Amino acid sequence: MRVLGIDPGLANTGWGIIDARGSRLRHVSHGSITTSARELNGRRLLTIRRELIDIIRKYKPEIVGIESIYFAKNQTSAIPVAQAMGVVLVTCEELDLRVEAFSPPMIKQAVAGVGRADKEQMQELLRLILGLKDPPRPDHAADALAAAVCRYNYLSPEQTAEGKED
Amino acid sequence: MRVLGIDPGLANTGWGIIDARGSRLRHVSHGSITTSARELNGRRLLTIRRELIDIIRKYKPEIVGIESIYFAKNQTSAIPVAQAMGVVLVTCEELDLRVEAFSPPMIKQAVAGVGRADKEQMQELLRLILGLKDPPRPDHAADALAAAVCRYNYLSPEQTAEGKED
Repeated sequence: MRVLGIDPGLANTGWGIIDARGSRLRHVSHGSITTSARELNGRRLLTIRRELIDIIRKYKPEIVGIESIYFAKNQTSAIPVAQAMGVVLVTCEELDLRVEAFSPPMIKQAVAGVGRADKEQMQELLRLILGLKDPPRPDHAADALAAAVCRYNYLSPEQTAEGKED
Repeated sequence: MRVLGIDPGLANTGWGIIDARGSRLRHVSHGSITTSARELNGRRLLTIRRELIDIIRKYKPEIVGIESIYFAKNQTSAIPVAQAMGVVLVTCEELDLRVEAFSPPMIKQAVAGVGRADKEQMQELLRLILGLKDPPRPDHAADALAAAVCRYNYLSPEQTAEGKED
């Protein structure tokens, strides 16, 4: 099963693709959609939409997990993230992909087994879980891979424990 | 010049169309795109997108004004509004329509001449400004008409004072 993970943001929308079979997870690809602050929000959101469509058409994921907005963060920064999230949700829906949203602690729980783990720990765990040579970068793409792992784990709870570290 | 005003929201996205020539404003149409809380956000956002596309194709506005998120409101309710706003921005951009965003006080200022006016005052002023028989309803559609008036006024500042009440 192919899973797309997304960490939405107006400036940087991370994405990650993994293949999952039983407790085995395999890295396929990851990256970041970057937009310029010199452009208007509508144009930036359209860049996100178009690149996301390209990624979905290329990799053909079956399910999608997205990192949701964390209310602990400040409100001003939540607005552009929510705008990007709205664009991701509507674009996936148009392409018949159901998106499940997960809070950052839920995603950390799924990858690290605990709700609190720092960025370096998460990236090192993703390296191990996904069989990568190096920890995934940049941060938004790593967070997107973690969202994909979380999405898969929530699909099949019986595989969460063993699937993560072999 | 034909102006589209939008008051975005996940449950209700108000829209209003006006025609403006010099200081004369004329009501064309208004309404509200309503989505069901029983549906997932992606599906609700897609309903907003599709109905908005229909409205734009039918009325062919040249410019668009949207009510932006007001930070005085609570953060939880701002997220779905921002998601809807993101969908409106990206959809208009795709259709080559530039959207300008205005805060609620700016919109009230444009319609009522002051940043504070209650809903009933605003709707009665819109009735006068736009030559309607009755105050526009529902609230979201009235707010959208006000956003359209604001958008036009900001386009041509010399017409703000006289254009509103004749």
